[in-house]
Amino acid sequence: MAKSRFEYVKQFERENYLLPDTHLVIRVDGKGFHKFSQHYTFDKPNDEKALRVMNQAAREIVEHYSDVLMAYGDSDEYSFLLRRGCEMYERREMKLITTFASAMTAYYGYYWNLAFPEKPLEVARMPMFDARVVVYPNFQIVRDYFSWRQVDCHINNLYNTTFWTLVLRGGLSPKDAENRLAGTVSADKNELLFKEFGINYNNEPEMFKKGTIFVREFQDYKPVEETGLSSRQKQRLDKARKKATIGEYHVDIINDNSFWESRPWLAD
Amino acid sequence: MAKSRFEYVKQFERENYLLPDTHLVIRVDGKGFHKFSQHYTFDKPNDEKALRVMNQAAREIVEHYSDVLMAYGDSDEYSFLLRRGCEMYERREMKLITTFASAMTAYYGYYWNLAFPEKPLEVARMPMFDARVVVYPNFQIVRDYFSWRQVDCHINNLYNTTFWTLVLRGGLSPKDAENRLAGTVSADKNELLFKEFGINYNNEPEMFKKGTIFVREFQDYKPVEETGLSSRQKQRLDKARKKATIGEYHVDIINDNSFWESRPWLAD
Amino acid sequence: MAKSRFEYVKQFERENYLLPDTHLVIRVDGKGFHKFSQHYTFDKPNDEKALRVMNQAAREIVEHYSDVLMAYGDSDEYSFLLRRGCEMYERREMKLITTFASAMTAYYGYYWNLAFPEKPLEVARMPMFDARVVVYPNFQIVRDYFSWRQVDCHINNLYNTTFWTLVLRGGLSPKDAENRLAGTVSADKNELLFKEFGINYNNEPEMFKKGTIFVREFQDYKPVEETGLSSRQKQRLDKARKKATIGEYHVDIINDNSFWESRPWLAD
Amino acid sequence: MAKSRFEYVKQFERENYLLPDTHLVIRVDGKGFHKFSQHYTFDKPNDEKALRVMNQAAREIVEHYSDVLMAYGDSDEYSFLLRRGCEMYERREMKLITTFASAMTAYYGYYWNLAFPEKPLEVARMPMFDARVVVYPNFQIVRDYFSWRQVDCHINNLYNTTFWTLVLRGGLSPKDAENRLAGTVSADKNELLFKEFGINYNNEPEMFKKGTIFVREFQDYKPVEETGLSSRQKQRLDKARKKATIGEYHVDIINDNSFWESRPWLAD
Repeated sequence: MAKSRFEYVKQFERENYLLPDTHLVIRVDGKGFHKFSQHYTFDKPNDEKALRVMNQAAREIVEHYSDVLMAYGDSDEYSFLLRRGCEMYERREMKLITTFASAMTAYYGYYWNLAFPEKPLEVARMPMFDARVVVYPNFQIVRDYFSWRQVDCHINNLYNTTFWTLVLRGGLSPKDAENRLAGTVSADKNELLFKEFGINYNNEPEMFKKGTIFVREFQDYKPVEETGLSSRQKQRLDKARKKATIGEYHVDIINDNSFWESRPWLAD
Repeated sequence: MAKSRFEYVKQFERENYLLPDTHLVIRVDGKGFHKFSQHYTFDKPNDEKALRVMNQAAREIVEHYSDVLMAYGDSDEYSFLLRRGCEMYERREMKLITTFASAMTAYYGYYWNLAFPEKPLEVARMPMFDARVVVYPNFQIVRDYFSWRQVDCHINNLYNTTFWTLVLRGGLSPKDAENRLAGTVSADKNELLFKEFGINYNNEPEMFKKGTIFVREFQDYKPVEETGLSSRQKQRLDKARKKATIGEYHVDIINDNSFWESRPWLAD
Repeated sequence: MAKSRFEYVKQFERENYLLPDTHLVIRVDGKGFHKFSQHYTFDKPNDEKALRVMNQAAREIVEHYSDVLMAYGDSDEYSFLLRRGCEMYERREMKLITTFASAMTAYYGYYWNLAFPEKPLEVARMPMFDARVVVYPNFQIVRDYFSWRQVDCHINNLYNTTFWTLVLRGGLSPKDAENRLAGTVSADKNELLFKEFGINYNNEPEMFKKGTIFVREFQDYKPVEETGLSSRQKQRLDKARKKATIGEYHVDIINDNSFWESRPWLAD
Repeated sequence: MAKSRFEYVKQFERENYLLPDTHLVIRVDGKGFHKFSQHYTFDKPNDEKALRVMNQAAREIVEHYSDVLMAYGDSDEYSFLLRRGCEMYERREMKLITTFASAMTAYYGYYWNLAFPEKPLEVARMPMFDARVVVYPNFQIVRDYFSWRQVDCHINNLYNTTFWTLVLRGGLSPKDAENRLAGTVSADKNELLFKEFGINYNNEPEMFKKGTIFVREFQDYKPVEETGLSSRQKQRLDKARKKATIGEYHVDIINDNSFWESRPWLAD
């Protein structure tokens, strides 16, 4: 509204418009969640209720922003896939990432208060998230991105499961448990769990082992060539995305091609 | 930890390291606060309690991040000045802005719940913020930046005060009030307030007219040439910044040079 | 080699590493070639010898940089397509564009001196080029890019041909010729040329109408999955690119799919 | 002129507008000049005639672009300082750097042909230059930048002078000369030159030891606050810059404050 002689300072603002026609992945990451989980005494190795708070927050984002086709998360991070034709905030990087960081923060706080009335959030230890966006030019790399995150989930969860079993059931100090695991590979950890504690890692909850996937599910999807759509057609498509149901899964998305092939809209 | 054949996807990540030796201003803005203020029935033209929630959230940020030398805010926005030598997150743009957006969101939610126990936040209408960072090469432009925001505060508040007086006390419909004010300048609004409602705008609360300023206040400040400091000296300076008290003001920062000249560390 | 206390100034340098796995197009443009062509008295509407200087310069670039798969040019501009896996200068934007601008300048000057011994270059009117690089995430857009340039060539050449025919053979002043052509479409210009001057535009030289295309031609091309290639395999491929012959064409690349389909390496 | 359905490809173009109100330094660097100097049999350690070709090319640029306040060069590189208020090409990075790379290439080729009629440039070994631009927020860093380049000139020239003296007069092989100099500091090289060859390095030509400086020289310079100038005033200033004489020097710009203080326009 106001025009003053100071307006010129706006000339120093810069925007980064992310490359059109590329897949965008926004990854949101908990800040200092190691300390956060200690402060609020999370169950180890996984606090199921706290994980569900993450999932509820992520689901809100998927529901609210219809350009989000899919989300994958585990531990204190979540990755959101925005469709190739996404024009949210004209693809301005700063708007996109601060909005996602803020939304995750708001929803996490909201669901935390519902889930943990006995552990109200304290101002000195609030849950916060940073975020980044990555631009991927084709869908094969997007698949590899999600594989990367799911491999990471697996490796961390196997480590944490073994570590905390050694500590909580084996009576080792954290330091000793760490030393015990130094240099071990996956097979070693599986064997250790089974031989010493009778735990078959395969029977651990899928949500812990595989993470959580939210997908926008379409009925009767017809691939559309976005270029040259009228604005009415665009609105109709956007409406369809808004109405789409949101599926929640804890499955392998690395090797199971059918997950991807049965949902061609993810790549469109 | 995990190295997999999918790691290559990280090569698509990009960082923007903001130019060294420049003043950084991070501006945090409420998202959809017009609707937010209607939903939670804010007092008009200013809801003092809600403004104080903003201020408390901003103060937390100033206290927590010692590189913040000053903050200025009004309505649903806050601008934070980071010192020229700031190396927080290696000056990475994405980290800086998502952290500030997230922190504002977390603290606002926290203080809202304290201030408005009778109006708990609803998941469909959470307070959220976006953020941007602007790089300013010299301090004159930084001063002009804050002048720009304070002029904006003044103009908006004078308009809103007149508008809501016409509606709440004058009985005009919002549409009629808008028409009545179309084309008026500041002097017209001052006169309208005074002649028709006996309101002297100058007597309105300073916080509404001037906004709120937080400043890191140093005792016995000695200007230091940052270049070539040992890491121990840097730590000592950082400690001094952490211990600095934080002043809160509602004063003119456009024309009052003494505000700036008595605080040489803001420009250093 | 030298380490001095001034080295810190390097911290202000920035690099833009162009997104991996995308097609790069570098477009080189003559600076002030309108005046340049007047100064050196180019034939109108096309100076065939000067165009061949452009083509020779562009061909040198294609030959010299084996990552260039194709080039298209007309008038005073040339576009070079760099392969998706190109790692020249680690895809640093500044290196790439300044190298191409400099190479075009050097080769143009060289071939000019050979072609026009009677018109030596004068220091006050040297041929210079600027350059930009554009990142395209998939090959359909790359094809559309070259279509865009060839449409531009066609429209400009039809206009120039008609304009200069009106001036040189019709005796119109440039101003009158411009007025005569205002508002005309292609069909009008074709008709004007034919009815008034007996010129069938279709019979104009293909190089003028279609521009010039250079393509790296491979025998027995086998598509290769670049990811995971050993450095020896990469070297072998690079050697193949270096040995590839370079074809020169003046053909339709907009509607003729076979041009593209018979050269799958362009998209690889 | 032409609007076609392919125009959308322009949406993928990006511009980097360099931060306003900052000093810009464009550094132009010879590409492969080690081989270039061998191919055209440069005198060693310095080919005075070839250096003068560099200088003439740089001077053309300083003369031609009135936003250039100063240039410093040695060996195969030149740095150009653009004034803080420079609006050339709207401060677009790609335009600026490709123009300077191209101009250097064009002028170097031109003056080479004048200086070395007996060594005409060959197409397989053309002189080419890349370029980069660096943004400096204040003038102290600009001074340090030029100090950095002059220190570099000194160190390289002392090394090269000693190396080539060992080879050309001492009869050492290049390999032996290199070994002889490994680990030596400046004092060692000075002593070696003096004791073994009677050469006092201080008496070497200033152009070799200090490099070359071009400066735009103003008479009766009055500092002007650029902000708020009318466009007529801007034109008058631009005209003054265009008329300024250009001084050429080979002097110390590291320790001699008077060089800088007597030319306040460099910082303005």
